[in-house]
Amino acid sequence: MEKWRSSYRFLRHSSANLFDRRTNRKFFNSIHSSYLGLVSNLTWNRAYHVFMRDACNHKPYFLMGRSIFGVSVNGVLIHLQRSNGTGCRIENRKFSSKASIPQRNKSFSVINSDDINYFKKIVGDRGVVQEEEKLDEANTDWMRKYKGSSKLMLQPKSTEEVSQILKYCNSRCLAVVPQGGNTGLVGGSVPVFDEVIINVGFMNNILSFDKTSGILVCEAGCILENLISFLDNQGFIMPLDLGAKGSCQIGGNIATNAGGLRLIRFGSLHGSVLGLEAVLANGTVLDMLGTLRKDNTGYDLKHLFIGCEGSLGIVTKVSILTPAKLSAVNVAFLACKDYASCLILLSEAKRKLGEILSAFEFLDINAMNLVLKHLDGLRDPLPSSAHNFYILIETTGSTESHDKEKLEAFLLHSMESELIIDGALAQDINQTLSFWAIREGVPEALMKAGAVYKYDLSLPPEKMYALVEEMRVCLGSAANVVAYGHLGDGNLHLNISAEQYTETILSKIEPFVYEWTSKHHGSISAEHGLGLMKASKIHYSKSAETVQLMCAIKKLLDPNGILNPYKVLPESVLHDGT
Amino acid sequence: MEKWRSSYRFLRHSSANLFDRRTNRKFFNSIHSSYLGLVSNLTWNRAYHVFMRDACNHKPYFLMGRSIFGVSVNGVLIHLQRSNGTGCRIENRKFSSKASIPQRNKSFSVINSDDINYFKKIVGDRGVVQEEEKLDEANTDWMRKYKGSSKLMLQPKSTEEVSQILKYCNSRCLAVVPQGGNTGLVGGSVPVFDEVIINVGFMNNILSFDKTSGILVCEAGCILENLISFLDNQGFIMPLDLGAKGSCQIGGNIATNAGGLRLIRFGSLHGSVLGLEAVLANGTVLDMLGTLRKDNTGYDLKHLFIGCEGSLGIVTKVSILTPAKLSAVNVAFLACKDYASCLILLSEAKRKLGEILSAFEFLDINAMNLVLKHLDGLRDPLPSSAHNFYILIETTGSTESHDKEKLEAFLLHSMESELIIDGALAQDINQTLSFWAIREGVPEALMKAGAVYKYDLSLPPEKMYALVEEMRVCLGSAANVVAYGHLGDGNLHLNISAEQYTETILSKIEPFVYEWTSKHHGSISAEHGLGLMKASKIHYSKSAETVQLMCAIKKLLDPNGILNPYKVLPESVLHDGT
Repeated sequence: MEKWRSSYRFLRHSSANLFDRRTNRKFFNSIHSSYLGLVSNLTWNRAYHVFMRDACNHKPYFLMGRSIFGVSVNGVLIHLQRSNGTGCRIENRKFSSKASIPQRNKSFSVINSDDINYFKKIVGDRGVVQEEEKLDEANTDWMRKYKGSSKLMLQPKSTEEVSQILKYCNSRCLAVVPQGGNTGLVGGSVPVFDEVIINVGFMNNILSFDKTSGILVCEAGCILENLISFLDNQGFIMPLDLGAKGSCQIGGNIATNAGGLRLIRFGSLHGSVLGLEAVLANGTVLDMLGTLRKDNTGYDLKHLFIGCEGSLGIVTKVSILTPAKLSAVNVAFLACKDYASCLILLSEAKRKLGEILSAFEFLDINAMNLVLKHLDGLRDPLPSSAHNFYILIETTGSTESHDKEKLEAFLLHSMESELIIDGALAQDINQTLSFWAIREGVPEALMKAGAVYKYDLSLPPEKMYALVEEMRVCLGSAANVVAYGHLGDGNLHLNISAEQYTETILSKIEPFVYEWTSKHHGSISAEHGLGLMKASKIHYSKSAETVQLMCAIKKLLDPNGILNPYKVLPESVLHDGT
Repeated sequence: MEKWRSSYRFLRHSSANLFDRRTNRKFFNSIHSSYLGLVSNLTWNRAYHVFMRDACNHKPYFLMGRSIFGVSVNGVLIHLQRSNGTGCRIENRKFSSKASIPQRNKSFSVINSDDINYFKKIVGDRGVVQEEEKLDEANTDWMRKYKGSSKLMLQPKSTEEVSQILKYCNSRCLAVVPQGGNTGLVGGSVPVFDEVIINVGFMNNILSFDKTSGILVCEAGCILENLISFLDNQGFIMPLDLGAKGSCQIGGNIATNAGGLRLIRFGSLHGSVLGLEAVLANGTVLDMLGTLRKDNTGYDLKHLFIGCEGSLGIVTKVSILTPAKLSAVNVAFLACKDYASCLILLSEAKRKLGEILSAFEFLDINAMNLVLKHLDGLRDPLPSSAHNFYILIETTGSTESHDKEKLEAFLLHSMESELIIDGALAQDINQTLSFWAIREGVPEALMKAGAVYKYDLSLPPEKMYALVEEMRVCLGSAANVVAYGHLGDGNLHLNISAEQYTETILSKIEPFVYEWTSKHHGSISAEHGLGLMKASKIHYSKSAETVQLMCAIKKLLDPNGILNPYKVLPESVLHDGT
């Protein structure tokens, strides 16, 4: 049972907050209904324990070296995972900055009973949700940081219903919030005030899959993990994988341009999404649902909706190119003496591992120390001495022997040229898991260490670590500056760990971290989007002219501003005119 | 000299029309100035002959199995290539459909001497081109199918100059045509009437290259082949490769969302372009020149300019992600008994060659017969009998022995399962070249066979060949229907070869071919764009609502419509309002 241990360890500590996000029910209940005879009288912890053991007999789910587990129960894939900021509810998470909450836009109407009756005609009684408990869930974001006060959630079952809803809302000037799995981290998927929530979770059909071209067409409410599972059976994979996959929906992935773990290999959704169907604020259905790799007939408007965070339209259907599944996965855990060596190693890996490189992750000594200190059961794979930087390299290819030979030759050469000073190549699935567990354990270790100020930044790789060092100078002994992330994608997770959350520390971090990122042409949001949290901070990463044009396009597509108001774009610019 | 033969053969037939597109001078003159002592008194053919032989001592240029040659002369890469529709001038090419030429928009001003004087202040005397010969060249498209009557070409040297030009033109309501290498095939890069030509060819600096991330930043006027050559020296490759690379410019590639030969492996420019700088019609410079793989701060507006054919703004700078160069290339030429086998073979290749597959091209028996009949020196690699379908598979990877082993195992298995009925694996560069020569020789063979009606279509692969068969039924013995293309990308080159170009044949092809493509959710322009040629045909591939929104965005960004008028969007919709 070695391979379950570390996952269990985490879940033991946070199990009281575990939910099955798909059904919005406590996880225990899910188990209860499926394993009634087994677990009905067990405590939370033991229920889970039984479940994990039982999982081994029910198609245990393990995906390519990620320490993410799940199991199919009565055809529903239930998903368990580590705390990486999206997997499990943990109360009282500390975030870096609070959004400046705007005033409610007075031009928006307030819903009344006529509206409710009209909506019931469109989506039926079942599609109109007014129960307090359900609304509370839908009003609150994943991290319990943002909470709206919507009195109404609608659950359409078709594009036509979405269209009718929006047409009516637009005519009545009723603001709406599109919602998928509600796993976002920047307050983008919950209401700010009393916006109507339009949840597309009932639109969850796979419409077609072409095994020749690998093109999947599905509705927006499909849960990412269900798509991964469907494709797995077809011999294909999603070009997108992220921690929240058990709950997040493909429509939300598109709307937020989710990045995730496979970006270094398969690129962004702007490359792999071939087509979309989206509904505009006025109810117009835009059919851009092409299934072609090449189509140069006019402007490729789907890209406006990829990453618009629901503020330009609601994505209802998706066409996506999926790569064929490759079976061979290898993972190495390496140590470098300095950051410069990490960068050279990345260059070399791109050249020598070329077509099989699927991850290039890094963590610094502070991150490693935190993991070893706070997470039980994790051991340093390179125990002979401490090192300044650690790199995790993963390869994925079609032929195990070829990939291993390439990786071993690469590692040997890197050792000889002193790019790496120590290293270990996973020999089995347990070692693979334990290497990933260290990298993926950093967020959990940070949570245990105390308060944590979290920043998700994109920076040119050669400048990335200079920010970490400057931050250490700024903060001195007041806090522990920890760095890790997707070095291969230029994505730094900068975390500042302290005993307590204080304004004094925050004032030393912000706006410094945003200004530094801006000065070095980085992005203040690598993959989470702007949402409510950073709508007013867009100018750190985008020019004034570009923001002006964004606002002009917003006004063109949504003149009444009913779609996901207060998010993405700064209210000040939006209401200044262009 | 075997490897030059086929290329020479073609050039012998068309040498009188060879130009160095970069300098807009006849090719002979280029040679003359560089090889004065050698060739000054030689005829065209012999000059070329000398040049090609000399080329062997001057870094002959050969790229990965494509039968494309060039040579560096005094630091200028001169490019020679086969007739594939973009390489060489050939008079009297027959295209399928003529654009319906619109009336000149009377709201546009006519340039006067004050305008000329103003432009001279911006770009200097050298940047204002009024010489008849140069204007004639710039007014005429690559295929000599479209010809404008512009009296002025401007050649700015910086973004600021482009901005000043556009600001002035917008204020004066002077229409403009952005122009790069002028290698487009749909009349998009030349004036329709007297539009001012803005040629960005002088803006051809490489601004930065990051060897860790592989991110290249350069100006829009950089010739694609120069970028390929620059990257080659750095150990990287462009994710884009196409026949016109010796002349086309990266800005034009972006503006037309060029597809090309590497799309199956590296995807479209929407995935690999990380950032852009573009100048709007009113002179506003949009700085979207990010160099980040991940950036989710607001709408990703650069995608509007990728494929807008210069109608929304002029691209001035580009940031692009380039993959590390891989050294091993293998090519196999295979025969399948039917189209269904081709499709299964494609599925299998994606799975078993996975990470190393870099091309999957097909031609049918009619294409093969044409090549063997009309092109000297090309032999059937599978001469034992004729076959219905031929497939060319190319792999590109980092380790020759691994790739060969994968490919051989794949071929063996495919033979055993009768997916392929005959095949040959190239054993050396000459065989590699000769295999590619057959596939790339089809356009030339078609030209030699007589009149040709050409269609560049995207279709779902499983439906692609049904169109070819239906077209054969429609045309009977009146014409020879020939099919080839990038099967791996779903891109069909449908060519109808006949003795003469007649309205009778055309009426049997159109609108049938467009209607059939539309009915099967295909694209009437896979990679060439709409330009002037197909602006009015956009509705075959895009919904009315989508075209309406395109028009609304055009009006938002270019209210006076000065940017590349009469192109891309149908005038009828554009002037109807939204």
